[in-house]
Parts: sequence; C-alpha cells; structure tokens
Amino acid sequence: MQIIRNPKKLSEILKKYRSKGKAIGLVPTMGALHEGHLSLLRQARRENNIVVASIFVNPTQFGPGEDFSRYPRPAAKDISCCRKGGVNFIFYPSVKDMYPQGFSTFVTVEGLSSVLCGEHRPGHFRGVATVVAKLFNIVQPDSAYFGQKDAQQAIIIKRMVADLNIPVKVRVMPTIRDKEGLALSSRNVYLSLAQRHDALVLSGALKLARHLFKSGVKDSAKIIGSMKKMIKGKKSAKIDYVAIVDLNNLKPIKKISDNCLITLAVRIGKTRLIDNTIIA
Amino acid sequence: MQIIRNPKKLSEILKKYRSKGKAIGLVPTMGALHEGHLSLLRQARRENNIVVASIFVNPTQFGPGEDFSRYPRPAAKDISCCRKGGVNFIFYPSVKDMYPQGFSTFVTVEGLSSVLCGEHRPGHFRGVATVVAKLFNIVQPDSAYFGQKDAQQAIIIKRMVADLNIPVKVRVMPTIRDKEGLALSSRNVYLSLAQRHDALVLSGALKLARHLFKSGVKDSAKIIGSMKKMIKGKKSAKIDYVAIVDLNNLKPIKKISDNCLITLAVRIGKTRLIDNTIIA
Repeated sequence: MQIIRNPKKLSEILKKYRSKGKAIGLVPTMGALHEGHLSLLRQARRENNIVVASIFVNPTQFGPGEDFSRYPRPAAKDISCCRKGGVNFIFYPSVKDMYPQGFSTFVTVEGLSSVLCGEHRPGHFRGVATVVAKLFNIVQPDSAYFGQKDAQQAIIIKRMVADLNIPVKVRVMPTIRDKEGLALSSRNVYLSLAQRHDALVLSGALKLARHLFKSGVKDSAKIIGSMKKMIKGKKSAKIDYVAIVDLNNLKPIKKISDNCLITLAVRIGKTRLIDNTIIA
Repeated sequence: MQIIRNPKKLSEILKKYRSKGKAIGLVPTMGALHEGHLSLLRQARRENNIVVASIFVNPTQFGPGEDFSRYPRPAAKDISCCRKGGVNFIFYPSVKDMYPQGFSTFVTVEGLSSVLCGEHRPGHFRGVATVVAKLFNIVQPDSAYFGQKDAQQAIIIKRMVADLNIPVKVRVMPTIRDKEGLALSSRNVYLSLAQRHDALVLSGALKLARHLFKSGVKDSAKIIGSMKKMIKGKKSAKIDYVAIVDLNNLKPIKKISDNCLITLAVRIGKTRLIDNTIIA
C-alpha cells in the first residue's frame, strides 16, 4: 500500500495500470473511517484490480459554523483501516493540493442540491460535486463506491455523472449499522453516551415508518407525523427535516408507492445526523 | 471518416484506440467551419493519431434573444471541411443527446466568467464550460484545440481544466484573418457588404493599440480612448467593451506590460463580433 499526496503523481502511477487494462476502483472518503467505509473498500476490492481510497476533509462542502476544523482526522487509524480493506493507493492530498490559489471552478447539480440537506446546508452539495468531479478526473476509476446512508449525495453524484458524461460506474452500497440500529457515521464520535442512546431515534423512526407502511398506511403526511412525534420524544433531538420523496428527483410524494425514499436529518445536541430507508 | 451522433457509441469506439495507446485530438466546434477551424483541425492532425471534431450548436451558451436559432448550420459544407482537415470522427450529437430530460448539472468558472463577454452575455461561459466538460468526458482526448480569437473562452477552459484536474492538454492556436485583417468568425456571414467593411474597425483598433504601445504609450486609458474614438467613427458600430486586461485573471491593468490582453466586442448592426491581441 502506497500513500500519495500529489494529484499529478497519482494520475501518472494509475495511468500505467490503466494502460495494462487493470480495473480501478475508487472509494472517496473524508477519513475517520468506520465499518461503513470498510464495506465500500471490500466491495471495491472484490470488483477491481486496483483499489484507491481518497482521504480528504473537503473544506468546500462545509458551511460557515459547521464542523470542518473539528472534524475527526485519525490518520494512523485510517491508514490501518485502508490496509485492512485491501487498498493499493491512499490518495491523501492537502487542501492546497486540491484547491491551489486561484481555484474558481465549481460543479453544481441544480434542483437536487437545494432540497433536504441542501436546504439546511447551502453550498454543501456544490462542494461535494466539485470535489468528486476532481477525484474522478485524478483517479479516472472504472467504478466509485458511495454509501446509501448519504442518499442525497449518491443521487446527486449519479446525476452529475450522467449529465457530464463522466466515464465511471457509481456503486451505492447499503448503510452499515451498529447492533442497536444506529447508522455508522464519522460524526457519531461527537455523541455523549446519553446522546448516543437518543440518536437511536433516527433508525427507530425509520423502522416505525416501514412498519406503518407495511400495515397499510400509504399517506406520507400521516407517516411523517408519527415519525416526528417519536423524534420529539427525545429531549436532545431537534429535527432538521423528515421527508418522503421520489428516489429519482427528490420531490415530495403524497402517497407512498415504489421508488420512494424516507429520509431524515436530526440534530442530537450539536451533532447533525442523517439516515434513510428506501421503499423499493 | 465516420459521423457519430450517440455519445456512448463514440466513447466506446475511442476506448479501443486509447487502449492501443493512440493519441486523440479533439476540436470542439459549433460548425459553420471556416479557415480558423481548419487550422485547428490541421494542428490536431499533426499532433495526434486520431482527430475528433465535434459539431454542436450548444443551446446553453446562448442567452435569450441571442442567435441560437438562426446560427448557421451548413452541414454538408462542414462535413467536407472536416474531411479536408483529416478528421477521423465527426461527433454530431442532437440537443437531446447532449441535454436529455432532467439534465441539471453545470460547470461554472467564477470570476473569469462574469467580466468582458460574460458581463454582456450572462450564462454564456457557464454553457461553454459545461459543454466542453461533457465533450472532454465523452472523447477523453489527449489534446483539445481552441482558437485565440475566443481568448476569454480559452482562458476559462484552461482554468476549468486545471481546477477540475481534467487530464487534457489545452492548445490555443492563433486567430486566422482574411486579407484585410477581419478575424474569421462563423458570424461574419450575417454581415452585409457595407457592414463587412465597417467590421474592419475591430482589427484596425487593435492595430492602432499595438502601434501606440510600440510608440511608447503604456497608459491603458489613453490607448482605450483612441481605440474607442476610432470605432465610433463607423456608423454601424456599437461598442460592447474595449478593455486591456491581465492575460491570466482578466483584471483590468492600468499600465501595459507583459502578459496583457487587448480585447474588444463590437456590434456591427445586429452582429456581435469580438477580437483581441496579446502583448506578450
């Protein structure tokens, strides 16, 4: 396993493998790796000859007042997790490597980026789309791996790839949860023990939604109402949104049918958590 | 020479050549080809194994009220010009091929896109950057060729390529002029004979600027003043802008020195023409 900081150097190394017909898989991460990331690395390992993991806490996807500076950066642990996941190259650039002076190009996916998390984090998905476009151009992977936990991100990246004709296959892998159902997230480390317990209300509300749907409730407003009531039962919880949307265009749907995404963002204390489930 | 309309089909064909190590050159055009385009094709021919010319009148770079619908589309003449230029593949997509329903991703180069032509044509360079990013991803050329006549476009594309780490070499080739000095442009066909004569004032004003500079005048305001006075001498001419800017960041410069761009946009009747010269 090799750690490479310079974008051009990485491109040059990977060019050799590409010219030999080797399949390259990319797992873009912000580090603070957990079992969710590991599942992406393992999937990439199964499907490619060369696995690249990028570790980059991307400043352009954080808003003012968000947790960019305190976002966890456990370098040694991340490197060992990459080794465990069978990574060949860690791309570990500095902010200056990615955004040199004079940088001024941004990729925006209109519509999809301004709803749900985009409404609460203006500019967030512009930063995501821009850095992912850069990573795709540096690595030129055959496939790239993202987690279903960040459902809106995955949908936006798929849209960008289709719209800009980027020659990469986007693979979205299932959310990994702890024993109690909490979706794994690098931000879970911010939670106190009590908050961690309260945070179970996110997956709890999604379970409730699925249960209601299976019992015959199709009305989104009713399901959202029950979910919100459950979440508000937790003192430390503050709802950003609870929504039931079309999986393709993220527009709200009134009656649940196929291809719908039940999604929510809740602040537990100061920690903003997201989770979702798909009704296929 | 093969004409291909479908983006995926073109990508697949070119993949084979790429895997054999063939160098691919791309000349993106809006058709209505003239000797300026031909010089780009010939340069691409000299420097590559495979030459791709794209012909696509890109709707996203035209503003409301601009000449998208009446822009010349002389297909047969364009195809024969491509043959003359040694093109291997003409990429000739429809608007739907490039912008299918649901399209919503745009590339913006901030700062550089809002001055000069960008100020007079809002959204123009967003459309240019987006379509060029798409063409780069579809063709994945080693080199792409642009004309110096569209100086701001070339600077914006270079910036986009650097910022998004796009693996392509951007080659900017000299402006081609007719015997009298008029810069070749697809829009010259809109001009009446009298207007064509008046249009010589663009290159005339640039010649004057160079002459003044060589005679020791370094003050931009003075030179711009003389240029404007000359242009206003033509009845059919209406100035959009006359500017002397830094070649790298397009910011106005007060005293001419190295790396400066003298650039202007003038409407001759209803036809908007541009031209420029570099003081290196």
